[in-house]
Amino acid sequence: MSESRWDVVVIGGGPAGYTAAIRARQRGFNVLLVERDELGGTCLNRGCIPSKALIHCAKVWQTIKSAQQFGVIVSEARFDWSEMQKWANRVVSTLRRGLQSLLKHHGVVVEKGEAKLHGANEILVPSSDGEKVHTAKAIVLATGSSPAQIPCDPNASVLTEEQALFLSSLPESIVVIGGGASGVELAWLFNTLGVKVTLVEMLPRILPIMDAEVAEGLRQSLEKQGVVVRTGTKVNFVSARQGKTSVHTDAGEIEADLVICAIGRKANSNGLSEIGINLNPNGSVAVNEWQQTSVPTIFAVGDLVHGSGTAHGGMMEAERAVEAIARQISGEPLPPVRENPVVPVCTYTEPQALSVGLTEQEAKEKGLDVEVARFPWRASGAAMASGATEGFVKAIADANTKQVLGLHILGVDAVNLNGEATLIVERKMTVEQAANIVRQHPSLSEGVKEALWALIGLPLHITKRPDRGRE
Amino acid sequence: MSESRWDVVVIGGGPAGYTAAIRARQRGFNVLLVERDELGGTCLNRGCIPSKALIHCAKVWQTIKSAQQFGVIVSEARFDWSEMQKWANRVVSTLRRGLQSLLKHHGVVVEKGEAKLHGANEILVPSSDGEKVHTAKAIVLATGSSPAQIPCDPNASVLTEEQALFLSSLPESIVVIGGGASGVELAWLFNTLGVKVTLVEMLPRILPIMDAEVAEGLRQSLEKQGVVVRTGTKVNFVSARQGKTSVHTDAGEIEADLVICAIGRKANSNGLSEIGINLNPNGSVAVNEWQQTSVPTIFAVGDLVHGSGTAHGGMMEAERAVEAIARQISGEPLPPVRENPVVPVCTYTEPQALSVGLTEQEAKEKGLDVEVARFPWRASGAAMASGATEGFVKAIADANTKQVLGLHILGVDAVNLNGEATLIVERKMTVEQAANIVRQHPSLSEGVKEALWALIGLPLHITKRPDRGRE
Repeated sequence: MSESRWDVVVIGGGPAGYTAAIRARQRGFNVLLVERDELGGTCLNRGCIPSKALIHCAKVWQTIKSAQQFGVIVSEARFDWSEMQKWANRVVSTLRRGLQSLLKHHGVVVEKGEAKLHGANEILVPSSDGEKVHTAKAIVLATGSSPAQIPCDPNASVLTEEQALFLSSLPESIVVIGGGASGVELAWLFNTLGVKVTLVEMLPRILPIMDAEVAEGLRQSLEKQGVVVRTGTKVNFVSARQGKTSVHTDAGEIEADLVICAIGRKANSNGLSEIGINLNPNGSVAVNEWQQTSVPTIFAVGDLVHGSGTAHGGMMEAERAVEAIARQISGEPLPPVRENPVVPVCTYTEPQALSVGLTEQEAKEKGLDVEVARFPWRASGAAMASGATEGFVKAIADANTKQVLGLHILGVDAVNLNGEATLIVERKMTVEQAANIVRQHPSLSEGVKEALWALIGLPLHITKRPDRGRE
Repeated sequence: MSESRWDVVVIGGGPAGYTAAIRARQRGFNVLLVERDELGGTCLNRGCIPSKALIHCAKVWQTIKSAQQFGVIVSEARFDWSEMQKWANRVVSTLRRGLQSLLKHHGVVVEKGEAKLHGANEILVPSSDGEKVHTAKAIVLATGSSPAQIPCDPNASVLTEEQALFLSSLPESIVVIGGGASGVELAWLFNTLGVKVTLVEMLPRILPIMDAEVAEGLRQSLEKQGVVVRTGTKVNFVSARQGKTSVHTDAGEIEADLVICAIGRKANSNGLSEIGINLNPNGSVAVNEWQQTSVPTIFAVGDLVHGSGTAHGGMMEAERAVEAIARQISGEPLPPVRENPVVPVCTYTEPQALSVGLTEQEAKEKGLDVEVARFPWRASGAAMASGATEGFVKAIADANTKQVLGLHILGVDAVNLNGEATLIVERKMTVEQAANIVRQHPSLSEGVKEALWALIGLPLHITKRPDRGRE
């Protein structure tokens, strides 16, 4: 049994874990990263990255189907799902190789194996000659999450949201259970590729953490594109019957060739409570504002503390944890509570959806006196020029302070406006400050400007403050 | 001869003019807008909007040509230039109708005709029953600019950058004279549609007002795509010979079916000096920081004061002029000099180019001690997923204050990052402040974050501060 000593040991090589490892190295610590599977975690291997690569392929197919209005006549075309998967695999493996050399360059030591936490400063990693012991001044847990399962017949064709990305061939019909970002993206992807898709959500609407109007707008768009959306529909069981899979809901059965379960994720927190780490009721790890667990030398970041979170949220937490660790190691006290940063949330469908800051519902629940304005893309020259006029920008401000509280966008390329929207909300800019920044004409950024202008009664390219984004 | 009285008369219905008119109405003034041609000016009718619509069509064609790597197999496709033009016309006429009803809604009175300035508070507009006289407390001149001409044989096939958008059929070969944004966009457009294109620029490089590295990167990309780029090449004359047109340069002749002249624009300032308005040596109207001309009741905005400017720059000037007019009418003094806002500059090619704030050259000429870092798109998950890894983000900061001075981007969809980049530079954010804002993963906004992180020695997804964007 060998033993080695580290400043920082990170368990889990996903975005939160590798960010913690690199940031700790950049502060001069010696760092071990232990990963049981592939570097890159869910995001790179089975989540954001392959799904975005496949979604891009589907968008190319969609472009071809709608090319005629732009003077491009395609008389014969088809798509090949296995070639699309090859593209996604190529993207994933290139990025994985990049990550590997990145960690090497930064001097992060990477060990493959399933780490077992063994006290406040110790982990064990199985190796060919027994168990390796690693001690550390601080440990960062970044073990992520796994897809939650739904009760089902073992013979039923049910895939998780991760497995769905690696389907060997496309079925004729799919039921997607779960109307969060993953479920909605998968429903859009397979519908665009000609599969008959039904999207089932237990709650009264899809995308429950996004602004309700953006979610409703995307629902209408998905329905127009052919997806059957059934909200307020609880799934009890999935059964198998004569080669078909049947989803049993409160509102009857839905039959399909395949069911994709995208009902959320569970933190990979097995065994942690046994060594004294407090968990939340949903099984995620309880942390303070510095990502510190109930064991002061152990920190947790990413999906492990959320169940289901965003990669960029986890990366931000990793930076915060490393800052805390650096102070802890040098004996400095941690500063008082810091505010939670604004974390954008996106859905990569067509149109895309972006929510930054407070939704209208959240702002009202906080008792704030809010003002709301919208700018529809059909009034935008940039959106018009590319025929992408679906959706709108919705801006929410505090009626008293005039501070921008939230920006919510449904539209083609909405995701690329996330930096602009987050800057405005995070920096607590007033509507006027944010509106008066010059934007390129024509560009989608003007939509943000116009929604803000509408908030202060100075719309330029719309005639009034629209009451409904989709009017 | 009828006479009518106004608070504000605006001459010219382009972006600067209509913005002045609407903003003046929003302050409660009664406003007359006089336009001799179509509402929307150069930008909407013969510039940004139709060119962006045609560029979108060409991008659809490009998508089809490169679809195979994304699993989409197109066995037969063609494009139809006249259908592409129909798309652009549809976009233009829809936006023009929108502008018309916008002005009507805001209560701007629009009169068609060629206005003639007739003193500090009076204009004349020809009408069926003689000349109409309009008097105003303030006059805003927004008469724009016209394409500059090159000496040429009257039989040579030479079109202006505006006329080129309305070509009835595509020739086999084109020489584009002028490597500014318009020339570069036209070169990209026609090259993408299969025309043999030579781009000729007198200066040592294309896009002289953009950062040199971005310009050089785009030049290399254009050459890779098939455009012949000849910089440092002065054109003396264009002649006609046996149905071919020949461009005579210092470095020899270049023959083509068609020549497009995109050498810049001249302010439409004819006759203004005769009524006492001072002009700059290049013929544009001289104004103070409030857009006021040497005649205190007359203001000038947009291309008229620049020769060749941007639509969004002109719109910003219009707002400034209206603010000044409002103070003047109410007898308030104008505040002291205000700083010039940051105005983004873009080129809508593939990849796109964006320059915000100071270029590296400008910062050094100002004697600033600058730090530079770059993030190449090939290290971005978002860019990788869509196969758009050409180009980079270049960030420039003041080495002492750490303030972000400039952000310069070459890459697919760079234009949509203009709001984010302009916010950072305009709000004088430090590198750390701008870098620490959370961005969606994966998204192109992360590229801005990474370039900023690299500036402070904390690159996350690259191994070091790259010395060259295209390494």
